[in-house]
Amino acid sequence: MASDEVLRTHLQELRRGTVVVASLIALRHPDYGYSLLQRLTGHGFPVDANTLYPLLRRLEEQGLLTSEWNTEESRPRKFYRTSDEGESVLHRLLDDLAAVQTSLTGLIEGVER
Amino acid sequence: MASDEVLRTHLQELRRGTVVVASLIALRHPDYGYSLLQRLTGHGFPVDANTLYPLLRRLEEQGLLTSEWNTEESRPRKFYRTSDEGESVLHRLLDDLAAVQTSLTGLIEGVER
Repeated sequence: MASDEVLRTHLQELRRGTVVVASLIALRHPDYGYSLLQRLTGHGFPVDANTLYPLLRRLEEQGLLTSEWNTEESRPRKFYRTSDEGESVLHRLLDDLAAVQTSLTGLIEGVER
Repeated sequence: MASDEVLRTHLQELRRGTVVVASLIALRHPDYGYSLLQRLTGHGFPVDANTLYPLLRRLEEQGLLTSEWNTEESRPRKFYRTSDEGESVLHRLLDDLAAVQTSLTGLIEGVER
């Protein structure tokens, strides 16, 4: 019998790559980590700070995000923004997600045949 | 600059969980490993034998697939089939994929606002 744990693992695996997609979309509008986390959660992408913050640093290292410190407020905050490279990768990922949907639909129909 | 390697990593991460979904759909019709691999590839889910075979064993251990040896041919083959539990998990995963699409669309529209 499939436990909740099994379901949770598969859901997590299915979700893992989509946080990257969601972040690259959301950061077309520059934002800092905690505010992004709240926006993603509000849009149905609940994500842990311990997952998101390292991810943002990784995406910046990969050149998919740029960052800038905003020091106008009392507390300096690092604002991330999707770079041109990030936008280009995002398009490929969105195309791939669409292809997955098409493939799954084809598979469902193929099996019913 | 984002290298091909960066894109490939993100595509892989995005795809990882979907092979489970594709396998659970495809195995509504019982099949053995290599034939399943060919069907998945034909439907746009290219997957390596070194990934698929351990995955099938894992899904069976989790109770999402059942298996049966077919010994009628000269070479005995293990046929896998999606179990009731597997079907139930599959539905949850498909619902979640649909929710991800809705969330991404909402996010894209929200950022454009």
